[in-house]
Amino acid sequence: MATSKSPIVDIHTHVYPPSYISLLKSRTSIPYIRSFPPSSSLRLVILPAEDTESTSRGRPVGAEYYDINEKVKFMDTHSIDISVISLANPWLDWVPQSEAAQAARDLNDEVDAECAKFPGRLFAFGTLPLSGGLEVIVQEIERLKGLKYMRGVILGTTGLGKGLDDPELLPIFKALQDAKLPIFLHPHYGLPGSVWGERTSDYGHVLPLALGFPLETTIAVTRMILSGVFEKVPDLEMILAHSGGTLPFLAGRIESCIEHDAHLKAEGKLGKGRKTVWDVLKKNIYLDAVVYSEVGLKAAVHASGEDRVMFGTDHPFFPPLEGEGEKWASVETNYVAIKGALGDATEEAKGALGGNAVRVLNLAL
Amino acid sequence: MATSKSPIVDIHTHVYPPSYISLLKSRTSIPYIRSFPPSSSLRLVILPAEDTESTSRGRPVGAEYYDINEKVKFMDTHSIDISVISLANPWLDWVPQSEAAQAARDLNDEVDAECAKFPGRLFAFGTLPLSGGLEVIVQEIERLKGLKYMRGVILGTTGLGKGLDDPELLPIFKALQDAKLPIFLHPHYGLPGSVWGERTSDYGHVLPLALGFPLETTIAVTRMILSGVFEKVPDLEMILAHSGGTLPFLAGRIESCIEHDAHLKAEGKLGKGRKTVWDVLKKNIYLDAVVYSEVGLKAAVHASGEDRVMFGTDHPFFPPLEGEGEKWASVETNYVAIKGALGDATEEAKGALGGNAVRVLNLAL
Repeated sequence: MATSKSPIVDIHTHVYPPSYISLLKSRTSIPYIRSFPPSSSLRLVILPAEDTESTSRGRPVGAEYYDINEKVKFMDTHSIDISVISLANPWLDWVPQSEAAQAARDLNDEVDAECAKFPGRLFAFGTLPLSGGLEVIVQEIERLKGLKYMRGVILGTTGLGKGLDDPELLPIFKALQDAKLPIFLHPHYGLPGSVWGERTSDYGHVLPLALGFPLETTIAVTRMILSGVFEKVPDLEMILAHSGGTLPFLAGRIESCIEHDAHLKAEGKLGKGRKTVWDVLKKNIYLDAVVYSEVGLKAAVHASGEDRVMFGTDHPFFPPLEGEGEKWASVETNYVAIKGALGDATEEAKGALGGNAVRVLNLAL
Repeated sequence: MATSKSPIVDIHTHVYPPSYISLLKSRTSIPYIRSFPPSSSLRLVILPAEDTESTSRGRPVGAEYYDINEKVKFMDTHSIDISVISLANPWLDWVPQSEAAQAARDLNDEVDAECAKFPGRLFAFGTLPLSGGLEVIVQEIERLKGLKYMRGVILGTTGLGKGLDDPELLPIFKALQDAKLPIFLHPHYGLPGSVWGERTSDYGHVLPLALGFPLETTIAVTRMILSGVFEKVPDLEMILAHSGGTLPFLAGRIESCIEHDAHLKAEGKLGKGRKTVWDVLKKNIYLDAVVYSEVGLKAAVHASGEDRVMFGTDHPFFPPLEGEGEKWASVETNYVAIKGALGDATEEAKGALGGNAVRVLNLAL
């Protein structure tokens, strides 16, 4: 394990607490957990595209999904000092309105209590009761401030059902800004199945996971930028999953398309006062380092800043297919990318591996 | 203008030859050209998303779309020595089968004749009669080899209607490989409108152009990789528009998703003999430098190689909104990106600005 002077922090690591697993087992449409005979092992199905008869229907659910001791074991194996755990998708997006407030309270308390079992090693992003209505959501944000291990909230891309550029979300963004709780923006819904073509199922989960997820994130944050969220809530902080989806690479094109758009110009939306994509990347946005290549990591660092990139693993997803390796290739690839892009033991590498997360998320007790 | 020793070459620059303009004027559904009263000026509408009553319906069509003298004037203004012109989208994808062969012959002969007006300064990518059937397509590829200024073909992402991973395209890819004609892969169809959300029209063309186009390209080439095109046609050469869409940034994630996919493993598609995304990027793929940022250009160079990136402008699209500037910001941004990423007068910068294109496309008479 690294010394306390330069800790390694995983800010992208998911849990399904036991109560959430029970909820998913009680359901018969996505998201749900069940076995598909003849096998008796449980599988988690969360996406429409994977809810079909095939060997790629969902994914096996093991103890690493719900047992916090497995999380800490994984951390030890991979030299991770601190993890900022978050409920995995699809969070509470699907909960009926009347149950949302209680579901979020129970879940966030449960996650906070899991963190308390390993003081100093576990922190968390909370989950918002998005289906509960504005008042319920803002109340939960207030409550999260008082929970000892909560350091932000995880959020999908649909918001209240109309995307993150929905003006009705502004009071929620303001409440998060005022509570100094960053948003960890994470994809779930992907892109419509028709995007992928008729041979998609030949390719397993690759197209929706490798391309759909990053684009979903990119679209969500671009819509926020275009609608002026970052002018209206200037200190809102966002940590973008998967190094921003594709935002670092496409930022230049987005900016060029904005500056050349006759409609935006006619509407008076160009010119002074507008925050550019680059402004937002360097002021409001942090990027995780879950991009699996030196090429991608360098672009993330270059776009947002070496002090704004944070190591992550996406555990428990992407386990070794053989299930035998002690160390996971998906984790090692991201370590190698950081070392390749930022050096072996430089201050920049230490920042990306943990220092930035400790500073931004205040990871001390 | 640069000296002949280090020419500047624009490999991403479009034309609508006069005969194609006439065709579009005769149509009443997209793609089409017409005026929208009270204005009498002509506008080109090519995308479903822009075919609605609004100030952003299509785009104005001026002489820069069809007059080759305007192209050369633009080249002179921007210090471009050589342009490799290509018909802009949607090419001949929409032509009835019985007319496809003749339409392609006429068009390619017309473009070749335009090049002949400025010998040494203009070359071209030809257009394939995709709706004409395999025999017609292969015949036109053979014919293109004999046209003096043709140096490849431009291709959209739908192929014969089922995407570029369609096995029925393999004979066409083989014919292009054998003819040593690279494919310039260019987006057109974007993503379904439902992807963008209900406030899309508030944002002009930004979302479909800035995000839809790059994703379309990325999906198309990823499907080719997943279906094994580059193992079956090992010397096929592709030049990807917009620096690969998002391929350089996402290559690591795509590779990780492939290597962790249980379905691909069960099908025996992993392991030896598979070309990785990185293999394809460094062997089969070239990238234009139309990415509007140093961040993106560095990622492109890093992913594919400094000898595989080629300057482009996307002219006549993205003109200055004021219509007054001598030099176009969209062009200057890409010059600045190359200089920022590769230096002011380095061999690498000269390669990206023109040397790579001259070598790969054999741009000498």
